[in-house]
Amino acid sequence: MSLNLQTHTEHFTNPLYLESGRILEPYDIAYETYGVLNEDKSNVVVICHALTGSHHCAGTYEGENKAGWWDGLVGPGKAVDTDKFFVICTNVIGSCFGSTGPMSPKHPHHEPYRYKFPVVTIKDMVKAQRILFDKLDIHRVHAIIGGSMGGMQALLFAVHYPNFAQKIISLASTYATQPWAIAFNKVAQEAILKDPDFKQGYYDPELIKEHGLSGMAIGRMAGHISFLSHESMNSKFGREYKKDDGLYELFGKFQVESYLEYNSYNFTKWFDPLSYLYITKAINIFDLARGFDSLEEAMKKIQAELHLISFKNDILFKNFEMKEISDVLDRVGNKNHHYLDVDSDYGHDAFLVELDKFDTYIKEVLNG
Amino acid sequence: MSLNLQTHTEHFTNPLYLESGRILEPYDIAYETYGVLNEDKSNVVVICHALTGSHHCAGTYEGENKAGWWDGLVGPGKAVDTDKFFVICTNVIGSCFGSTGPMSPKHPHHEPYRYKFPVVTIKDMVKAQRILFDKLDIHRVHAIIGGSMGGMQALLFAVHYPNFAQKIISLASTYATQPWAIAFNKVAQEAILKDPDFKQGYYDPELIKEHGLSGMAIGRMAGHISFLSHESMNSKFGREYKKDDGLYELFGKFQVESYLEYNSYNFTKWFDPLSYLYITKAINIFDLARGFDSLEEAMKKIQAELHLISFKNDILFKNFEMKEISDVLDRVGNKNHHYLDVDSDYGHDAFLVELDKFDTYIKEVLNG
Repeated sequence: MSLNLQTHTEHFTNPLYLESGRILEPYDIAYETYGVLNEDKSNVVVICHALTGSHHCAGTYEGENKAGWWDGLVGPGKAVDTDKFFVICTNVIGSCFGSTGPMSPKHPHHEPYRYKFPVVTIKDMVKAQRILFDKLDIHRVHAIIGGSMGGMQALLFAVHYPNFAQKIISLASTYATQPWAIAFNKVAQEAILKDPDFKQGYYDPELIKEHGLSGMAIGRMAGHISFLSHESMNSKFGREYKKDDGLYELFGKFQVESYLEYNSYNFTKWFDPLSYLYITKAINIFDLARGFDSLEEAMKKIQAELHLISFKNDILFKNFEMKEISDVLDRVGNKNHHYLDVDSDYGHDAFLVELDKFDTYIKEVLNG
Repeated sequence: MSLNLQTHTEHFTNPLYLESGRILEPYDIAYETYGVLNEDKSNVVVICHALTGSHHCAGTYEGENKAGWWDGLVGPGKAVDTDKFFVICTNVIGSCFGSTGPMSPKHPHHEPYRYKFPVVTIKDMVKAQRILFDKLDIHRVHAIIGGSMGGMQALLFAVHYPNFAQKIISLASTYATQPWAIAFNKVAQEAILKDPDFKQGYYDPELIKEHGLSGMAIGRMAGHISFLSHESMNSKFGREYKKDDGLYELFGKFQVESYLEYNSYNFTKWFDPLSYLYITKAINIFDLARGFDSLEEAMKKIQAELHLISFKNDILFKNFEMKEISDVLDRVGNKNHHYLDVDSDYGHDAFLVELDKFDTYIKEVLNG
């Protein structure tokens, strides 16, 4: 069967009431679907993306080489089998791939919002998706799956829309963002804000497309450190020198330095710095217990079958954070959750790159 | 007894031959001494400082509040007892506290070296100290102690000057800098280099004194992450908000953000950015095995009684790096080394702040 990739943008004119008390109006949500919706609409699987992800999680656009960010997991015959499931992945609000974000035109004068864009939370992102699904006449889904910030969305779906999903899988995520993750984001935020080309948010979008902000590249380097682990850095780079630079140890460039440069400067060409600021803010203030007396009270709301997957050497969202969710669920008497700690050396990146460590598990959950 | 703090600068006109093949000539070494040298010169203890340290490791200068960086360890009646030992601490070459560094006047025209300063290695720093001790007519010392980059110096003394020290204590260090440490340094280097006020090294020293480089502050934030641990960040900050900012969760500033800002921007006012570039470079290329066929061959040179101290939650120089040195020494039949892994939550900073976890050990080594 084919992947049946379809890309859409839905326009909403009703106001979106945000956690901050502010309103987003109007707004767009870009999303992609794969597979075919069955007659009783019982085969919907929602995929939620991470900080710099997009709605393009599977397949390859015509004329491009790079597949969607979870292409190894989502497709015909894959763990999230598009021969069987109708998969929806939406770009979160605040992002820069089609859904309304800080560089979208502000109604009615059509200038970009920039700093006037409201603070959005991950709960707001989830709410916007829920409204999209309503518009698509989908009121209950088979499963929701997400890693990192996507895993936060999955957990928020579980707590705030207890009847919406039958199964929920959250990977490499947390119940509330911890100080070390906030600290890594802080480096990035500060580096963007202090880049003179950023111009307090009034940067030239053409300049970004051309070469990006070095401030964002610097911040992204700190991000890359947090996505890796001691083990993966050792096996990936060790103390090797960049090949054409290794003439003499004292003056060469280490491979790890070259990796950070290449990936970080490349990143600045395809991601918007204001979106980076807004989404890292949303991640920092993520707290599953917000609005409840305690995490226990929040957890009591969950009715879906919940699967928590952590990765042993993740230094960004430590495995004990996912374990804590499982422990709290035990304490409040939830009998319908499962916790899996995956033995991986890849660190946080494992949820994107070491699919063979958990794709069978996901397949079994979806089909079980 | 008194500390007997004395600050000196020694001027050398003979060339210092560097590992790179270049020459530093003339050069100064700033150093401090504490206690009194005994008649047979058998009571000398050398202290080696870390990346941003200085020769001022103990006592408080007149009119200042802040004591030296290891004041809790060094002084009358303390672990490194200045009633008993004559302590010398020198500022490394490449630094910015009196020893010759990139902002020192270049002979003969007296303009600062800036980028024309040669790459210095930690072995060069050690060599310069050895020359200073020769000039002071000290040819053998009781002990050498250092943490982090200071621990690298201690290890290099052990390998390259086997008869110089009777006892050597290296804390929170490594045998060769690993990719994660290089990666953290990369963020700082890139942030400094891309700061427009840095002007390719031609920054205005007055401007640095006034408010420093924001690029260096951003890089230092990444550094601070590496000095802490998940555990220390959790107990220090958790998800607490800065008190006067905590009006509303969505708009407040986290304490961890405030800590990073305060310490990093403060740092830029007292440390030179070119020194930061040169010293992080020296740390990155540190490899105890350089010049030998293997680490084993280097280790075979050691004759001093060697003490290796690591800290369990150090994420910058992981405890297994110190353990590796101990394992290699075992393999080459060295019977005169001891390895201690300190149970601490403080991360890399532990060697500076959690003195009570190892000061008794150091006292016993020095007196034993």
